[in-house]
Amino acid sequence: MAEEQANAEKTEKAEVKEEKPKAAKADDNVVYIGKKPTMSYVLAVMTQLQSGMNEVLIKARGRSISRAVDVAEVVKNKFMDGVKREIDIGTDTVQDKENKKLNISTISIKISK
Amino acid sequence: MAEEQANAEKTEKAEVKEEKPKAAKADDNVVYIGKKPTMSYVLAVMTQLQSGMNEVLIKARGRSISRAVDVAEVVKNKFMDGVKREIDIGTDTVQDKENKKLNISTISIKISK
Repeated sequence: MAEEQANAEKTEKAEVKEEKPKAAKADDNVVYIGKKPTMSYVLAVMTQLQSGMNEVLIKARGRSISRAVDVAEVVKNKFMDGVKREIDIGTDTVQDKENKKLNISTISIKISK
Repeated sequence: MAEEQANAEKTEKAEVKEEKPKAAKADDNVVYIGKKPTMSYVLAVMTQLQSGMNEVLIKARGRSISRAVDVAEVVKNKFMDGVKREIDIGTDTVQDKENKKLNISTISIKISK
């Protein structure tokens, strides 16, 4: 409760904070994996790689992690066989609606030409 | 239907084939991730590591991949901070009931002391 109040006071800051993990479009070479079909994200990655970027970061959390692996595999197997990959896993701490702390696993797959 | 018949004729072969990807226990240091709760697999990994093995391989396919990452993260964060990890992703080709080929993503996470 106290936490909610504090958040209300700093709305601007809270908004920035919320935006970041889920749908940040600031980093042009990051593709965040959500619940869309796998091929949407494959297309996004391919578009990045063909628009002159040398590397793209695929990021996902929780249940979307398996889709992130699907995306990386489809990009490699169907479109660009020679790409290099670096995979990293980690844990984010998020707060649920009741302000309890939850640990959620993350993956980031760096694909580079 | 024709396939079912064929399977019935080669029951033995079919059984061996089914057993392999899902529940192979031959490799002692491999923990295959399925649909049990995360902590069951964490316990399995910890048991391996504490029974003198220097490395354990966590393997998963498809939707279980995110649980494999959960297991690796819990082992690292809650139990053994100093472990090293090597992550590899790939694709397996399996046949569905109608004998169509399906690609399924895989992950293998090597945890070593």
